[in-house]
Amino acid sequence: MHRVDGKRMRPIWLDDDGRTVKVIDQRWLPHRMEILALTTVEQVIDAIQQMVVRGAPLIGVTGAYGVLVALRTSTDENAFLDACDRVKAARPTAVNLAWAVDRVVARAMAAPPGDARIETVIHEAGQITEEEVDRCRRIGEHGARIITDISRTKNGRTVHLLTHCNAGWLACVEWGTATAPVYVAHEMGIDLHVWVDETRPLNQGARLTAWELGRAGIAHTVITDNAGGHLMQRGMVDLVVVGTDRTTYTGDVANKIGTYLKALAARDNQVPFYVALPSSTFDWELRDGLGQIPIEERHADEVHFVQGKRDGAIARVRVSPADSPAANPAFDVTPARLVTAFITERGVCAASEEAIMGLFPEKKNKRRAQGLV
Amino acid sequence: MHRVDGKRMRPIWLDDDGRTVKVIDQRWLPHRMEILALTTVEQVIDAIQQMVVRGAPLIGVTGAYGVLVALRTSTDENAFLDACDRVKAARPTAVNLAWAVDRVVARAMAAPPGDARIETVIHEAGQITEEEVDRCRRIGEHGARIITDISRTKNGRTVHLLTHCNAGWLACVEWGTATAPVYVAHEMGIDLHVWVDETRPLNQGARLTAWELGRAGIAHTVITDNAGGHLMQRGMVDLVVVGTDRTTYTGDVANKIGTYLKALAARDNQVPFYVALPSSTFDWELRDGLGQIPIEERHADEVHFVQGKRDGAIARVRVSPADSPAANPAFDVTPARLVTAFITERGVCAASEEAIMGLFPEKKNKRRAQGLV
Repeated sequence: MHRVDGKRMRPIWLDDDGRTVKVIDQRWLPHRMEILALTTVEQVIDAIQQMVVRGAPLIGVTGAYGVLVALRTSTDENAFLDACDRVKAARPTAVNLAWAVDRVVARAMAAPPGDARIETVIHEAGQITEEEVDRCRRIGEHGARIITDISRTKNGRTVHLLTHCNAGWLACVEWGTATAPVYVAHEMGIDLHVWVDETRPLNQGARLTAWELGRAGIAHTVITDNAGGHLMQRGMVDLVVVGTDRTTYTGDVANKIGTYLKALAARDNQVPFYVALPSSTFDWELRDGLGQIPIEERHADEVHFVQGKRDGAIARVRVSPADSPAANPAFDVTPARLVTAFITERGVCAASEEAIMGLFPEKKNKRRAQGLV
Repeated sequence: MHRVDGKRMRPIWLDDDGRTVKVIDQRWLPHRMEILALTTVEQVIDAIQQMVVRGAPLIGVTGAYGVLVALRTSTDENAFLDACDRVKAARPTAVNLAWAVDRVVARAMAAPPGDARIETVIHEAGQITEEEVDRCRRIGEHGARIITDISRTKNGRTVHLLTHCNAGWLACVEWGTATAPVYVAHEMGIDLHVWVDETRPLNQGARLTAWELGRAGIAHTVITDNAGGHLMQRGMVDLVVVGTDRTTYTGDVANKIGTYLKALAARDNQVPFYVALPSSTFDWELRDGLGQIPIEERHADEVHFVQGKRDGAIARVRVSPADSPAANPAFDVTPARLVTAFITERGVCAASEEAIMGLFPEKKNKRRAQGLV
């Protein structure tokens, strides 16, 4: 799946030379498909910060390959570790980045320097990639059951799902997280339709999710971020499914700014609100989402300007007055109490420490061994 | 007040010729100040539908002057009444339009045809205009007391207010509704700051409210529509004040799409949520906001495209894929239970039939006389 113009595609891959990391430059989609080659640590950091690549799982995979780039370009071990630290700090909110970099660095340091270390890093980054693909596929299978159940309740009438931002294959590697249940249910022949929040300021919904769904032939409608509550009030949304950048082991969800508002509307209208995530997005250290998850503040120009297509080229226009300031918090935290359930690779569970630890008992045991519980 | 480049300005006025209605073309603000002359009924209807003029009170005033245009350009009484009906139906949600047209038409028909009727209509449209200005000023005085009280509680530290869309002088004639308390409190020297929701799809917040506040020297920050909930969670919003296009006598509020989401976030974070309105925006006939207020669905292109300034000119860019559909409901309904209070020209009251009728007892008496209560 995920064919673009008939060609199978992933948003990231390692070139045959074993050193060049290739990524889809997501800043220009849906208007232009451009592939970027990353061969220096600065390029990797830039790609993450400028959101050439974005989405928690993909940022993690990019970080993993960033370790390879760091290894290939560092003159000694200290420089290597220092470069990895900088990759790890490129963006603060998604926990997958630190998780993936730490994991690959640990493997690297356990291997002898030289070719063996390079081979180890290539293998481990590839491993993380395939694990994320596998997790997303499983999320799709578990989530599709939820959609199938709703479809049955509706006697096969169209199931209307609402999603915010892009938690699709572009944000992961294949399948996506929030979109995985959609892709699987669509393959099963379930009649469904997706309301796509445009997701200002960077419009990942209107640009990326709409593009993904369109390429896959899935019925969808772009709406402004303001519209979701109204649709829920009118009974036009059967379920909400979103991704997450970091989720505490107690069930608090940091995701793209605006997610919290949709969770409130879902609660107010008894619409189930699901968060789809691979276990790599759980933060097993944090208890309090609002108090502990760092929220990235991005540049005000992302608010002032909007980018799109004009006369066949990509252009940006300034919306606000030249002398008005803007603020741009990139994420918000949806408290566990507003989440109906998580859809993980191991199945569906309630948004509570007990349920999460029940699904991932090894994490509980680890915390116990560390004297944390 | 409301000086633009040192010149006093209103968004609408009758030209000295007694027949040309002049309006600020709000589609091009803040990038360009353009005045449009309306001399035919079609131009009046177009101006309302294309949102050259917008905002419930201003739509009402435009409708009132639309009656004058209809009278000046109609060959007979039937054509006149027919033209007035068309003006009245130009947009469905704001109740002020029908209210103002009906009021001026009733006066017109009570006057003898010819010059006397024209004079009557000019007088009545002017009367409605000045009454709206007076109501907005009073709303400002009542609302400023709320801001002053919060300022006192905070020992004079900055009061942070959040508003959605533009319920400023551009949407009214002077003062605005939601902005009136801001302007009055600012004149009183209260330290305040306004979070301005950009308000997609047409960005009336980022374009118009930011421009208004900037011209008045009032501290403000533009944010995406997604950000307000996050700011409230962090204690960065002391109160929300919005306008309304139609409010039932039971307290349900139809306002720009997305208002409901902010009301939910305010409730979830114990932030007071105020709706400022002149009594002309109450619908004394409707009991059930969700069930009875017609919600305008506007063109999908307003969602697909964003307009702004580029290289000194106004341009628009397409954000979404060319083959994706979009939906564009223009308003939503905030149920009375989420409204802390209304700020009207007669004072502040709870969002309940009892409190509203207590402030406007003549409406209750009228309903009683009609056998409605």
